[in-house]
Order: sequence, then structure tokens, then C-alpha cells
Amino acid sequence: MQIDILDNIRIVLVATTHPGNIGAAARAMKTMGVKKLVLVSPKIFPGAEVTARASGADDILSNVQVFEDLQDAIKDCSYVVGTSARTRNIPWPVKSPEQAARQIIQKASKAINVAVIFGRENSGLSNDEIELCNTIIEIPSNPDFSSLNIAAAVQIICYELRKATMVVDEKFEEIIEETPPASAEQMKMFYEHLEQCLVDIDYYDPEKPRLLMRRLKRLFNRAQLDLNEYNIFRGILTAAQNSAKKG
Amino acid sequence: MQIDILDNIRIVLVATTHPGNIGAAARAMKTMGVKKLVLVSPKIFPGAEVTARASGADDILSNVQVFEDLQDAIKDCSYVVGTSARTRNIPWPVKSPEQAARQIIQKASKAINVAVIFGRENSGLSNDEIELCNTIIEIPSNPDFSSLNIAAAVQIICYELRKATMVVDEKFEEIIEETPPASAEQMKMFYEHLEQCLVDIDYYDPEKPRLLMRRLKRLFNRAQLDLNEYNIFRGILTAAQNSAKKG
Repeated sequence: MQIDILDNIRIVLVATTHPGNIGAAARAMKTMGVKKLVLVSPKIFPGAEVTARASGADDILSNVQVFEDLQDAIKDCSYVVGTSARTRNIPWPVKSPEQAARQIIQKASKAINVAVIFGRENSGLSNDEIELCNTIIEIPSNPDFSSLNIAAAVQIICYELRKATMVVDEKFEEIIEETPPASAEQMKMFYEHLEQCLVDIDYYDPEKPRLLMRRLKRLFNRAQLDLNEYNIFRGILTAAQNSAKKG
Repeated sequence: MQIDILDNIRIVLVATTHPGNIGAAARAMKTMGVKKLVLVSPKIFPGAEVTARASGADDILSNVQVFEDLQDAIKDCSYVVGTSARTRNIPWPVKSPEQAARQIIQKASKAINVAVIFGRENSGLSNDEIELCNTIIEIPSNPDFSSLNIAAAVQIICYELRKATMVVDEKFEEIIEETPPASAEQMKMFYEHLEQCLVDIDYYDPEKPRLLMRRLKRLFNRAQLDLNEYNIFRGILTAAQNSAKKG
């Protein structure tokens, strides 16, 4: 019963190079009861090597969705989690796999769509992709050799997700939200609106380094706007733009 | 320092059929800092596929020990742990990966040699092999599809072993921030500034119920502004006020 919670979670693989990794990821998912696999610009898919390494997780492969753009792949998700095996130079909210899995299960159990994103074999997720995420999972690893295989990383996360479904009785510290969260697509519109508003009120010059927008995104992703708050902010931005135009 | 504990733990693969799995297991081990790999009657070893899938974990491969008999492989071990993804008909002490990992690390930290044994790709460990074990780890899995890849199982166990060495894991906090948070006094000034700004841009009428400000405070308190973010927002508010006044 509880395991159906996992159906609200999708695993998103970005620009995977080796088809075997896609198959192995599907198998890893299926062993833990996670079913929804989404691919963004895979180099090779479908393919014989995908199927071979899936060894029996064919239902997952036949339901795969493929997108060209990551934003399209997560459009209807209200909680977006990136994965990384190394620390990054821009600080972004970071959680351990276990902490993140509990939070993901909590969201998914309220019928919120969650995406867990895995980056390229060699270079992981780009900074632009990280900025789409509410939080980042950092898988603990050997600092001298942190290059987890993609399917191995998927295995660890799906394992923690399954474990987290088994502890739903444990108290969750977070406040029960009565309003649904804003979706990734709404947040995209919000950030575009915010940027334009900052230009209109002469605060921001897009020609300057983009660190400002990154900082603001980090803040709002951390806060996770609900729909009410989203609407309030859109209203504030419009009011600020209108009163700037009056001049 | 703590990680040296892991040197007292060996991963034992019994009668592995696919050489790629040996390589992938070596890689999985190395990402988590576990170094000692022991093979019992591998079908193919060494081999090109072993090396390819190890992708860089060559030191582990070059130190592999190979035995014909499992008993020889674990002769000097005082704690022997088997792994399984399914329940068995002979009752044997069973632990979760997490419970077992803690116990293993506890033993290993007292310089006790520990073996963690993984069975054949298709049939796992035999009953005779299970009987050599002090305890069995049962990896939680989908009852309809519990066939974890060997290297994936090694990855999960080594991940839990690494976690168990991290005493600080519990303190793995949400955000590692280099900037100090804004003080309560600053937040008070910020909220006053925000309210005045919302009046100036004709968004907010203080005569109306004050629910709006409460919502905004709840949001910003949840996000916990750091000093940088505080300064950015003060700047944005001032810019919005100035451009409204220009009118």
C-alpha cells in the first residue's frame, strides 16, 4: 500500500552517454519499487545494451518518457532534487540521501510529484540544472574516488527511498502545508518575472554577472513557495513594475 | 582516519559468473573507501571486462585475492556476514543493511577482521555458505523483483558501511553556509521596510487585515535569510521605492 507513494517519484537521467547505464538504472529502480524513468537527451535509447542490462525491468523501459529539455521533464513537479557526489563551488541546500529520501517520501505521500535528477556520467549536473533544484543530495563517498556509476547512484537513492517508505510512522518535523506548492513551471515564470521586475526598477543589469539571480533562486528554492505565496509575489512584482512605469 | 576501519573489512564474491560484475563491484567499493576484494572461484578473472567496468579502481583489482574455497577466504575473519535479497527457508539471524553496518564497523574498529559475502548472480548463497555466517543482511527490496545486481548490492552495503563510519552523519546539516544569518533585529527592520515598500508601490493597504504580512513573514522566516540575502533584499526594496517615487 505505502509503496504506491513511490509512483509519485520520477528518476530523471540527463544526457546519459552509455546505454548500459540506462538499463542498469531501470533494474536498480525496479528492485526498490520505483517505476517512473524519464530520460533527457540520452545518447542512445532504446538499444540492445539498454535491454540487456535492465535484465527483466522491461516494464520500466517500455514506459520511459524521453524529453529534449530538462525543464519539460520536470514541468509538473513541485519538488525537484538533484544528486551529486562532490561538493560544488556555489553553495546550494545539501542533504544526505537519507534526509532527502524522508522529505521526498513525505512530499510524495501528499500526491506531490517529485523529480530526482542524475547528471552526466563525466560531469554531473550543470550549474543551470542545479538551479532548478529545491535541494541537492550529496552521496557520501571516498574523497579520492567519488565517481559513482550512474546506476549505482540510482540504486543508493532508490534504496533510501524504499527505506523511507518503511518509516512513515516516524514523526516528521515539517509543518503540514495546507496549500499545494508551486510547480517547477510556475517557479520558472516567477524567476523570469522577478528578473524583469528588477530590471524595471533599475536594480539589476542582466549584462552584469548572473550571481544575483542565482542567489535569489537559491533563496526561493530553499523556501519552497506554496501557491498562495507564489500568487502574492507575482502580485507584488506587477505592482512594483506598474508603479515604476507611472514615472 | 576513521576510514582506516574499513581496511579490516573484506568483500567476498562467491562464484561470480559475469566478469563485468567483478569490475563494477570494485568500483562500487572504491567509491565508498572499502579496498579489500576477495574472489572465490570466479568464472573469469582477470579480464578486459573486469578492468573496463572497474573504471579506475585498478588498485583494488591488483590486490584481489582469489580462493577456490569460501572457508579459506574467510579463515582469519571473526565476524562473517552474508547478504541476501530474499527471505530464506532456514531461519538465520537477519539484520537490515544499516543495523549490520553499524555492527560491522564496531567490530572492525576493534581490529576484528570482517567478511561480507555476496553469492552467485542467479542463486545467491547456498545453505552451507549461509551456515558459515554470523548474521545475514537482508537488503529491503521489491517483493516482485528482488534481483539486485551483485555490484549494486555491494554498492548499497559499502554505502551503509561508509555511513556507519561517519559519526557526524547526524549533523549533516541542511545548509553549510559561509555567510552568517541575519539577526532578529535586522529581520524586524527588513519587515518594516518590506511593509513600507508594499505601501509605496500601491500593493498593500495597512488598514486591511494584516494576513499578508503574516504570510510574508512566515515565508522569510522559513527561508532564514543570511546577511548577503538580507542586504540584497534591502537593496531591492529601496530600488522599488525610488522608482515608484520618480513618478
